[in-house]
Amino acid sequence: MEYFKNVGTISYEGKDSRNPLAFKYYNPQEVVGGKTMEEHLRFSVAYWHTFTADGTDPFGQGTMLRAWDRYSGMDLAKARVEAAFEFFEKLNVPYFAFHDRDIAPEGETLRETNKNLDEITALIKEYMQSSKVKLLWNTANMFTHPRFVHGAATSCNADVFAYCAAQVKKGLETAKELGAENYVFWGGREGYETLLNTDLQLELDNLARFLQMAVDYAREIGYTGQFLIEPKPKEPTKHQYDYDVASAMSFLQKYGLDRSFKFNIEANHATLAGHTFQHELRWARINGMLGSVDANQGDYLLGWDTDEFPTDLYETTLAMYEILKNGGLGSGGLNFDAKLRRPSFEPEDLFYAHIAGMDSFAKGLKVAHRLIEDGVLEEVLTHRYRSFREGIGLDIVSGKADFRTLEAYILDKKEIQNESGRQEKLKSILNQYLLEA
Amino acid sequence: MEYFKNVGTISYEGKDSRNPLAFKYYNPQEVVGGKTMEEHLRFSVAYWHTFTADGTDPFGQGTMLRAWDRYSGMDLAKARVEAAFEFFEKLNVPYFAFHDRDIAPEGETLRETNKNLDEITALIKEYMQSSKVKLLWNTANMFTHPRFVHGAATSCNADVFAYCAAQVKKGLETAKELGAENYVFWGGREGYETLLNTDLQLELDNLARFLQMAVDYAREIGYTGQFLIEPKPKEPTKHQYDYDVASAMSFLQKYGLDRSFKFNIEANHATLAGHTFQHELRWARINGMLGSVDANQGDYLLGWDTDEFPTDLYETTLAMYEILKNGGLGSGGLNFDAKLRRPSFEPEDLFYAHIAGMDSFAKGLKVAHRLIEDGVLEEVLTHRYRSFREGIGLDIVSGKADFRTLEAYILDKKEIQNESGRQEKLKSILNQYLLEA
Amino acid sequence: MEYFKNVGTISYEGKDSRNPLAFKYYNPQEVVGGKTMEEHLRFSVAYWHTFTADGTDPFGQGTMLRAWDRYSGMDLAKARVEAAFEFFEKLNVPYFAFHDRDIAPEGETLRETNKNLDEITALIKEYMQSSKVKLLWNTANMFTHPRFVHGAATSCNADVFAYCAAQVKKGLETAKELGAENYVFWGGREGYETLLNTDLQLELDNLARFLQMAVDYAREIGYTGQFLIEPKPKEPTKHQYDYDVASAMSFLQKYGLDRSFKFNIEANHATLAGHTFQHELRWARINGMLGSVDANQGDYLLGWDTDEFPTDLYETTLAMYEILKNGGLGSGGLNFDAKLRRPSFEPEDLFYAHIAGMDSFAKGLKVAHRLIEDGVLEEVLTHRYRSFREGIGLDIVSGKADFRTLEAYILDKKEIQNESGRQEKLKSILNQYLLEA
Amino acid sequence: MEYFKNVGTISYEGKDSRNPLAFKYYNPQEVVGGKTMEEHLRFSVAYWHTFTADGTDPFGQGTMLRAWDRYSGMDLAKARVEAAFEFFEKLNVPYFAFHDRDIAPEGETLRETNKNLDEITALIKEYMQSSKVKLLWNTANMFTHPRFVHGAATSCNADVFAYCAAQVKKGLETAKELGAENYVFWGGREGYETLLNTDLQLELDNLARFLQMAVDYAREIGYTGQFLIEPKPKEPTKHQYDYDVASAMSFLQKYGLDRSFKFNIEANHATLAGHTFQHELRWARINGMLGSVDANQGDYLLGWDTDEFPTDLYETTLAMYEILKNGGLGSGGLNFDAKLRRPSFEPEDLFYAHIAGMDSFAKGLKVAHRLIEDGVLEEVLTHRYRSFREGIGLDIVSGKADFRTLEAYILDKKEIQNESGRQEKLKSILNQYLLEA
Repeated sequence: MEYFKNVGTISYEGKDSRNPLAFKYYNPQEVVGGKTMEEHLRFSVAYWHTFTADGTDPFGQGTMLRAWDRYSGMDLAKARVEAAFEFFEKLNVPYFAFHDRDIAPEGETLRETNKNLDEITALIKEYMQSSKVKLLWNTANMFTHPRFVHGAATSCNADVFAYCAAQVKKGLETAKELGAENYVFWGGREGYETLLNTDLQLELDNLARFLQMAVDYAREIGYTGQFLIEPKPKEPTKHQYDYDVASAMSFLQKYGLDRSFKFNIEANHATLAGHTFQHELRWARINGMLGSVDANQGDYLLGWDTDEFPTDLYETTLAMYEILKNGGLGSGGLNFDAKLRRPSFEPEDLFYAHIAGMDSFAKGLKVAHRLIEDGVLEEVLTHRYRSFREGIGLDIVSGKADFRTLEAYILDKKEIQNESGRQEKLKSILNQYLLEA
Repeated sequence: MEYFKNVGTISYEGKDSRNPLAFKYYNPQEVVGGKTMEEHLRFSVAYWHTFTADGTDPFGQGTMLRAWDRYSGMDLAKARVEAAFEFFEKLNVPYFAFHDRDIAPEGETLRETNKNLDEITALIKEYMQSSKVKLLWNTANMFTHPRFVHGAATSCNADVFAYCAAQVKKGLETAKELGAENYVFWGGREGYETLLNTDLQLELDNLARFLQMAVDYAREIGYTGQFLIEPKPKEPTKHQYDYDVASAMSFLQKYGLDRSFKFNIEANHATLAGHTFQHELRWARINGMLGSVDANQGDYLLGWDTDEFPTDLYETTLAMYEILKNGGLGSGGLNFDAKLRRPSFEPEDLFYAHIAGMDSFAKGLKVAHRLIEDGVLEEVLTHRYRSFREGIGLDIVSGKADFRTLEAYILDKKEIQNESGRQEKLKSILNQYLLEA
Repeated sequence: MEYFKNVGTISYEGKDSRNPLAFKYYNPQEVVGGKTMEEHLRFSVAYWHTFTADGTDPFGQGTMLRAWDRYSGMDLAKARVEAAFEFFEKLNVPYFAFHDRDIAPEGETLRETNKNLDEITALIKEYMQSSKVKLLWNTANMFTHPRFVHGAATSCNADVFAYCAAQVKKGLETAKELGAENYVFWGGREGYETLLNTDLQLELDNLARFLQMAVDYAREIGYTGQFLIEPKPKEPTKHQYDYDVASAMSFLQKYGLDRSFKFNIEANHATLAGHTFQHELRWARINGMLGSVDANQGDYLLGWDTDEFPTDLYETTLAMYEILKNGGLGSGGLNFDAKLRRPSFEPEDLFYAHIAGMDSFAKGLKVAHRLIEDGVLEEVLTHRYRSFREGIGLDIVSGKADFRTLEAYILDKKEIQNESGRQEKLKSILNQYLLEA
Repeated sequence: MEYFKNVGTISYEGKDSRNPLAFKYYNPQEVVGGKTMEEHLRFSVAYWHTFTADGTDPFGQGTMLRAWDRYSGMDLAKARVEAAFEFFEKLNVPYFAFHDRDIAPEGETLRETNKNLDEITALIKEYMQSSKVKLLWNTANMFTHPRFVHGAATSCNADVFAYCAAQVKKGLETAKELGAENYVFWGGREGYETLLNTDLQLELDNLARFLQMAVDYAREIGYTGQFLIEPKPKEPTKHQYDYDVASAMSFLQKYGLDRSFKFNIEANHATLAGHTFQHELRWARINGMLGSVDANQGDYLLGWDTDEFPTDLYETTLAMYEILKNGGLGSGGLNFDAKLRRPSFEPEDLFYAHIAGMDSFAKGLKVAHRLIEDGVLEEVLTHRYRSFREGIGLDIVSGKADFRTLEAYILDKKEIQNESGRQEKLKSILNQYLLEA
């Protein structure tokens, strides 16, 4: 059946049209700096928000009744696959992403659960063969079921650790089967509620053991997708172990895992941790660990993960700036880990929202590309840090200087000349590029 | 002259007295678990807040006129030393801490500045010889002067880097001269205002170069005090590089500096970074990097560093819990990086405030000691994580398990049994210990 | 049947016992300042958190399986009543509170829903007749069902307004039937998601019309309980109209409703709005509008309503201070709008948590009473503001002064003398009272 | 002398030019919807940030050395006036604003201080006569001097109240003398540090007495400018009395002062209080109390008042939307209560920053005007709330309905139909207007 009857394939009518069901800035085949927009942006639809979630919030029931909700159990799971591929095609996105439990229901035992999963995986594979859509990444939902109440790989209960091991084992097999370009670890319950009852050291050691086992098993079965850690500072737990990029890096370094992982950076998780989205992207980039992006936005005045569709053009521009400077996202992409506001409960809103997000990133790409092409910010840096390319600065950077030579150089100097950082002017220029690029 | 005429030596009158100029819980010679309170707590007075600052805030002039403010220049610097040692003695604290510019004014050149510094250092040394007070740590103020406007070791200006190198060189010599048990690095301007004009990679590389030079120079001159990094997430810069313990660890690990540094953890910096004080202490502790503590408290409803004197007994108890579990602070101590509220401008308030802080930590020590002695929380952990001491859990911890064996173990299990985390009960018990210990 | 088999009636064993199922500080018959603890504290159990909720959070399913969950529909509703009265009796609390939908399920129409409600109301009334437990307040759940997606009385849909009117009409009838001492309005969906689609003026006008209708209907049927507004700044909506006490006061004043309402102040809502719990209590108190309290606590490092059981003794002490200064809560009480942490899923935890909260408020009552009895803070105020009881200050307060007379008084004065606010000393004294009272 | 030698009069070169010293979007004479941009925007320069401040922050000395800083005392005050009028002319702004202490230094007594003030006021008046620049508003600095340590009109010290009365008396006289179109009250120290030592009721009563005296005195001397309250929630005090628009409204209503005051709304103060800038503008607007605007922006990730120059086009667009819907600002204007970042210390940065702000608001004006002209958001509202213009909705709005009639209407209805709020689509449309208008 057709699930989104009111919506045909979305057109690329350009920015003059007021038709909300047309892209204004995104055109997959438009070339920007030698690559098509589609190649640059690698958009992905999040299965959970778009096909599984229903608008439930902590104070209210679901508002989003979908055409596939007439089914239940495995029939519902199959209907969702059908709806999903219709949606992917109409929206013309190249990727999607899912948690294991988004696509198939649990059974009485993990064996039964895996059987359900296999059946839907096979169906998805079938759909993928007659579609251009690929799997950006899959992951394991190890946070919804009550068994994960005290954590998954960091549970105080060894049975839970074992369960998770088996679940990720299956996840890696699924990834291989469907050609997932990445495999994501988001530790929804990997954190603590209170230090009063938490053996922090054991929990972190166990998390490292778990990740090492995953690395080993992927190698064993020949799964070569990129492993990604997705940091988040809090929610659902009071304090999550993968707090932000720097925290997660520290953890990976300590246990010798940093070569095996990159980061999947979510905008809203960045801001919950006290960082801008750009900060987290930059931090990962300069450490060679920028893997993929969960493209959404938060509300700076709210203290939880609102997972809004990204529409702030400043954010999309600066994100694309970092991504272009990174030489792209490699096997990663821009996955819309974003959900409709609860009052936007009609199926058409799924299209409006994705179009809003895709247009915003398309515009951001163009602005960022122009900034780079014109060397606007690079020129600033070149000028600003020039003292490190000659004289005493070059000595410092090249390792020739030490405290004694530096003291000798500066001891009798009267004044040091600094220059303005010109932040306000730079923001003005950014606005001009945004409006004119 | 006598600067605090209204205040005699503070007595230890015990908790029944309503005399605000008497300790209620702190008694330096009282033995708790085999060590005296003085040995456990190693209190330190912060020179800057207590003898240099005047209550200025961003919207108002100083309110705190001190008896030594009749002087200026080097005379003021000398008067402050005199006042400081009178204060240390009356309060009976074993340690103090300072920034170079707290104790002596700058000259026209660094050479002149160093001359001023040498003169005051000699005076301090003299006072120390006839006193039991020791130097917990010293550090370099590389944030107040306009030359640091773009950073210190991370400035875009090589001359500033050189200046800082020379300044820390002198700081290490001062540390050696005065027997400082630690040397602290707080990067007040080591961060960025905007990524639009920041070469993040170069700045972090330079910071690492700088710290390595410091390590090398200390070795060269035979200074053996502990090096400490003090994390803070923001303020004065929009984003500081040593954001929190985990971030700073990641940085140190990347540049191979983690063996040379421990952390000086400040309560208010922890909360500004989104962590509890206890979290930062625990994180440092389990990584063997808990060095020292800046004992203060913040206001959770205010978004800046309020540096209040620590009086929250929950905080002091949980902090002392971590410190006792760490086997103490080694060469570190509890330094009151805390300032009077601007309206508490009378000299007596300096005593009230330090007494409040010292009593609060003394009480915290006793409660924490009782908690440990009674094994209250340890028993919880032992029981809660018992599954990792046998069977499949032991296999996991000892490295015998892998994804295949764990899957085999769990695949057909029907249900996993978890137990309550008992957080509410634990909080109740904590209250009882607080009130009865 | 007996639902809490493992738990007998809770004893009052005093603070020496380590039995977690005994009160340590609360003793209902203990007299403090002329009234029993029970009369002072007027504890109430929240039906929703304790008998209806199951530990679901935005990332996870319920963890709390209760003995009554074997039933469904109206049978479940009846079993919950039975369990509730068993719980009230074992815990020995004098009050409870509920939303209409907590106690009975919805039907196909409001008529059917009301029929369900009537049946359970009758059952509750029966239980109440053979129990000392009374209804502190009831309220209408106008936020869970999808019909309230755009608001309740502030919905853009007139049918929803009508539905709410009928629902509150029934609520007032229920209140009268069960002798509820108060009736609460918490506007869970009365707010906005975005101003882009919101007619703020019409929504606020409608809210006022709605409240006026409620006032009128209560008068008509002779319901004389106190009407209470419960402020909350955000969650579930992005911005709620009853943001805090001052905002809600402004609204009530504008529409001439301020004489008909008092406030039900929730600790966690206060902190989400940027205020301390004490601030909101004080603000309501000095305006004669302190009606009742939702006794819980939040987590200052988390940005959502955590609704934790109150255990922070500073908070309970300062809250009881305001309540005592208010001459008590009148028809209000301390309602535990608090839920178990998701990992505290065992039935016993309900007892541990309530005991923790009741003991914390009992201790707070005692400390606050001692502070008042000793005049500790009153003396400070009397001294601090003494200049307004004579001379120019008396002229100001009594309305004799104006800008001309005040200028004449001050124009040639050289210096104004201020005195320290002594905040640090006051915190020290508060600690002593906490530990010794 | 010429203070800004490197800068000629700023040109209006249009958006194609990359010259940072030219307006790109602001052209004072360009007509938008029947009024010139200059008439719409009524830009004002803040004397304190631009001519008095020096870049000092809590951790560092001033970085901004200006040409007039060679002078001191009254000579400095005069040089600043000269520099200010040069700046106003070069930037071509129609308004400025100041605190009394920005323009002239204090003397030994208030009489002497007033003498200084009179001298500079006369000088400013002279400059104004040969300039088109007018005074948007003046105000009294009752927060910097130590005498205000416990508050100004809310001080615990009656002498301080008297001092403030005399100071505002003079301020009103100055306002009349210079034709200030408004007089502003920002209560920098009107708040509390701790409730432990605060008589909240007396302080608020005194604040009301003070404002009433000001109203009376203005009437007496025939000063007819608009009185404005500027809300701010915290900083410098822990909790300020004029927390936000709703709080300040409640206060004014209680004391019968609401007819005499409107609001001066600052963007950064709004966000510190947990509201968007648009929220505060809307709230004031629908209550007929939108008076003027302090045009700046904050940093959502920092917890203090950063007072940045406004460059976020979303903020300026939505602000101008509210202002246009308000029929303009009346006697108010857009005052740049904004300061250069400390590293932007060169005089040219003052121009870059003001141009950035003026261009951002000019663009915002155009986008907002187009949104209104096209009826984009109005159409949404008209459709969304249509149920209140007929049938039961009309009965509600017109006062015909009550709980009984509404119950009769809804009691047997099976389902209520709601429609999507379309938030994501609206954000997409906003982006298009921003980019294309």
